[in-house]
Amino acid sequence: MAFSPALTQLIDALRVLPGVGAKSAQRMAFHLLQRERQGGRHLATTLEHAIATVRHCSECRMFTEGERCEICANERRDPALVCVVESPADVMAIEQNTDYRGRYFVLMGKLSPLDGVGPEELGLGILRERLAAGTVEELILAMGATVEGEATAQYVGDLARQNGARISRIAHGVPVGGELEYVDAGTLSQAFSGRRPV
Amino acid sequence: MAFSPALTQLIDALRVLPGVGAKSAQRMAFHLLQRERQGGRHLATTLEHAIATVRHCSECRMFTEGERCEICANERRDPALVCVVESPADVMAIEQNTDYRGRYFVLMGKLSPLDGVGPEELGLGILRERLAAGTVEELILAMGATVEGEATAQYVGDLARQNGARISRIAHGVPVGGELEYVDAGTLSQAFSGRRPV
Ligand SMILES: [Zn+2]
Ligand SMILES: [Zn+2]
Repeated sequence: MAFSPALTQLIDALRVLPGVGAKSAQRMAFHLLQRERQGGRHLATTLEHAIATVRHCSECRMFTEGERCEICANERRDPALVCVVESPADVMAIEQNTDYRGRYFVLMGKLSPLDGVGPEELGLGILRERLAAGTVEELILAMGATVEGEATAQYVGDLARQNGARISRIAHGVPVGGELEYVDAGTLSQAFSGRRPV
Repeated sequence: MAFSPALTQLIDALRVLPGVGAKSAQRMAFHLLQRERQGGRHLATTLEHAIATVRHCSECRMFTEGERCEICANERRDPALVCVVESPADVMAIEQNTDYRGRYFVLMGKLSPLDGVGPEELGLGILRERLAAGTVEELILAMGATVEGEATAQYVGDLARQNGARISRIAHGVPVGGELEYVDAGTLSQAFSGRRPV
């Protein structure tokens, strides 16, 4: 005895979501079929659409549907200032909580050799090109204060140094061992204004 | 500044999943777009397919793609014995861990007036018809030992009594306050063989 084929397939497919094991996948499938068919149908359509249209900004790697993201396409954002972050959520947090008016580079991860994440996976070739073009004057390192975040900051800092850019690092407030996106507004704002040359 | 439209829509749509708040929805969306596009596409297709094809068995309310579920369609399962459970997961747990050879009735929930779940939402009209047809000799109440489970057992027991069926209740082993689907195999098996007339 097993669940019907379509239900079994749905439970299996839901396990692609991070943090979702066998029990939660089952609970999600039942919930969708029992109470949220319309929401479930909407989720399927939306997911298909996002996968088909969302790509990475050619300049900063942020998720976008265009060639370039909203920020890179905005001529009023200072191209001499580039803030390097781990995740799109970090861009969001900085935009919402500080008055930063420069640009970004989104690594979409951090160096983690054991998980097969090296400089290439973080798109650092694109960053090197931006640095080599000579418009970037200051690179702000805004990785989280984790072991992997530190190693990534080190690596990106070296890259910037080789290309003659000034390097600074957000400093005060990001709790040691903490991820940037969970930092409160005031702390993040202070970390930004208190950044120091490396 | 906001995420691009397709990404924002995906994050919103993911919140239809039980237990998924704003932060987890964001994490899920990034994960799917960054690392699991193929799995995400598969999830969308599978979800759409399940919503279009999975319905409730006309006899027991179990999820099925046919008119009747695998168990109700099996002539070798004793129609005189009906076990009433809260969820499809409970059917699974009983099938995998006991030698029960009767049929089921799946409430797909439990009585919860505050959440608007009454006898009708639990399909008790269908159960009444099965009882009135006279083939059911014993109704086994296998709700979880929670307050709502107890109230539901009470209600379903009364229904069976009015229709002249014998009523028993699985007894030993289901921990007080516990949900049936989390009970270990031995305990559940014992609870089944140790059922008593009510
Ligand atoms: Zn961009
Ligand atoms: Zn059935």
